[in-house]
Amino acid sequence: MEGAVYLDNAATTRCDPRVAEAIGRTLSEDYGNPSSVHPLGVRAGRALRAARETLARALDAGPANVFFTSGGTEANNLALLGFARATRRHGLHVVVSAIEHPSTLGAVKALEEEGFETAIAPVDEKGRIDPDAFGELLRPDTVAVAVMLANNEVGAVAPIAEIAKRVRSRSPRAVFHVDAVQAFGKIPVSIRALGADSLSVSAHKIHGPKGVGALVLGGRRRPRALVFGGGQEENLRPGTENLPGIVGFARAAALAIETLEAEAARLRALRDRLWAGLAKHIPDLRRNGDPEACVPTILSLTFPGVPAEALLHQLEAKGIYVSAGAACHAKKSSLSHVLVALGLDRAHVNSTLRFSVGRFTTEEDVAVALDAVPAAYEGLRALASKR
Amino acid sequence: MEGAVYLDNAATTRCDPRVAEAIGRTLSEDYGNPSSVHPLGVRAGRALRAARETLARALDAGPANVFFTSGGTEANNLALLGFARATRRHGLHVVVSAIEHPSTLGAVKALEEEGFETAIAPVDEKGRIDPDAFGELLRPDTVAVAVMLANNEVGAVAPIAEIAKRVRSRSPRAVFHVDAVQAFGKIPVSIRALGADSLSVSAHKIHGPKGVGALVLGGRRRPRALVFGGGQEENLRPGTENLPGIVGFARAAALAIETLEAEAARLRALRDRLWAGLAKHIPDLRRNGDPEACVPTILSLTFPGVPAEALLHQLEAKGIYVSAGAACHAKKSSLSHVLVALGLDRAHVNSTLRFSVGRFTTEEDVAVALDAVPAAYEGLRALASKR
Repeated sequence: MEGAVYLDNAATTRCDPRVAEAIGRTLSEDYGNPSSVHPLGVRAGRALRAARETLARALDAGPANVFFTSGGTEANNLALLGFARATRRHGLHVVVSAIEHPSTLGAVKALEEEGFETAIAPVDEKGRIDPDAFGELLRPDTVAVAVMLANNEVGAVAPIAEIAKRVRSRSPRAVFHVDAVQAFGKIPVSIRALGADSLSVSAHKIHGPKGVGALVLGGRRRPRALVFGGGQEENLRPGTENLPGIVGFARAAALAIETLEAEAARLRALRDRLWAGLAKHIPDLRRNGDPEACVPTILSLTFPGVPAEALLHQLEAKGIYVSAGAACHAKKSSLSHVLVALGLDRAHVNSTLRFSVGRFTTEEDVAVALDAVPAAYEGLRALASKR
Repeated sequence: MEGAVYLDNAATTRCDPRVAEAIGRTLSEDYGNPSSVHPLGVRAGRALRAARETLARALDAGPANVFFTSGGTEANNLALLGFARATRRHGLHVVVSAIEHPSTLGAVKALEEEGFETAIAPVDEKGRIDPDAFGELLRPDTVAVAVMLANNEVGAVAPIAEIAKRVRSRSPRAVFHVDAVQAFGKIPVSIRALGADSLSVSAHKIHGPKGVGALVLGGRRRPRALVFGGGQEENLRPGTENLPGIVGFARAAALAIETLEAEAARLRALRDRLWAGLAKHIPDLRRNGDPEACVPTILSLTFPGVPAEALLHQLEAKGIYVSAGAACHAKKSSLSHVLVALGLDRAHVNSTLRFSVGRFTTEEDVAVALDAVPAAYEGLRALASKR
């Protein structure tokens, strides 16, 4: 949409034109099936291999440990369901944080129906996980542990390496999965440095295409597949490879990594300017999450006394697009489990909006938001007090 | 590849430029998350709904019964694993044909590990299924049945409606799944007329993008999901929707349906000219499958006395690309289970190539193949007889 101020980059991002170009080229030229042995297939196979190497480099993993999926949701499910099912002879205990993505929590719920027991690790009022408290939940029969690197609603970055140490010592048989979907491309992500057994990433959060992601493994352990078939992705994820999507994902990853440091600084400055400007005009504005450990892109704000939905629609009328909570439950009436885990009461949860910046966010966008948000808020406050 | 004669359209097809254009537009303009409530999300949601309606119309189903997946493999797995798991209280018996796609057979193997028992229905030497013989395998405790509408290796079209009747009478609780991946866009496919409970289709077989397919349901029965998460696709297939892929799929489906009759006649004529020309020059050439009931696109040929691989590479050197069996096991040394089920011995299986035509196949392409194949075959025969 021309002229719109898109501040919903944590929900999804606009595809970078350079990525779209790579996808278009693959669609029309490299249309072979990577499994075919003729030159078109060989060429497709080569493109697939190059993409795998790019993703591996971007995440400090071995290329043989990158498995493409249809997105972050499938990658999280493959890790959780796949590892837990593969190792259920060692135990039926799973530990995840309270602020995981619905795909992780959904997989955990499915595991419970299969006989697993779950421990949910709490977070503090800033969304922080205490590694020691987390460690207390770990048991010798824990087989799967999952923690998000950066939370999708408030941006809080978890102390993954510290948690990994606890997992290794207390639950030596457990697989430690890290959902890096919101972190990848915004902060440095090394599977080795994190000490994780698996990482999930998604293309459409980094200006790549929707419909493609990856599960990246740290070692030789393999989850049980969720689908079965023609042997692609070493049987871990069969089906004709989404080559245009995968090539686009690799291009998006390369672009994100190349410019990571400078872009992170630029986005942090934009985000912080938005926060400072809004806080100045809205004294009781509350910022959720941990400003000390946060991706540079997300700003979760509670506007006391005003329904988030009303504010969202006022902003929308001015061409400013934000989210009330994450996109994946934006349409549902249920309360955000993340904000509830941070201790927000129902009124505060329902007064919370997420602003998220991205590659195409400009200073002008922030200026427009700084101009519009306080006025919209005050209008709604005045309306509320008249009632 | 410029100038190549691509006769491997059953493996995958070149994306139609009109489809690529629709994908490019969605990537750069309709980049919202369909779950977002702001106008960009609403617009994305509208595009998603339109695509769903197009697919529904193309398959004679209700739009609420179209569930997008990452492709045919996932759709087949969702149907087989999902329905069998959802209904396992009614029985643990599954029936599939011997010439199903590896994704169906893979799902069945996974079900066997979960305690299910499988009956494999044989086919005759032309790849035909006898509905009565098939019916003999059906039991009151059969919960899932799967048959391919058109086989991917030999093109044989199965008597689905006849089989459906047997399923209804003998296994009233069973779900009847039809893999329509190779049939869709080549012959008319109506889920109602077929009497199926579910159909799987894939975009990249009809000049659409790789990485997207659909499971289309006939009624209200729902399989258990394979992945869990944010509720998309009515919880049957969560994860941010692959909107560019889905829009491309719908465009590809609409194009295929619009021109189906004329294009099928054109492709059949091309395929039959290829067969007639080759048979004239290669007297012991053998055609596999059922010429009476076959998709217009596939020609499976056995070249006695010549290794298919050697012939394939000779043709490849002349820019003609075909397959030895299906792409999904082209790289494996295992024998094609389809050709084995048709009764071919090892030597004949290893002398079989699949030629498959598509929208971009021209008369000139067929002329090139007619010129090259007999010469290559005779050269290899001469070489073999000298040994």
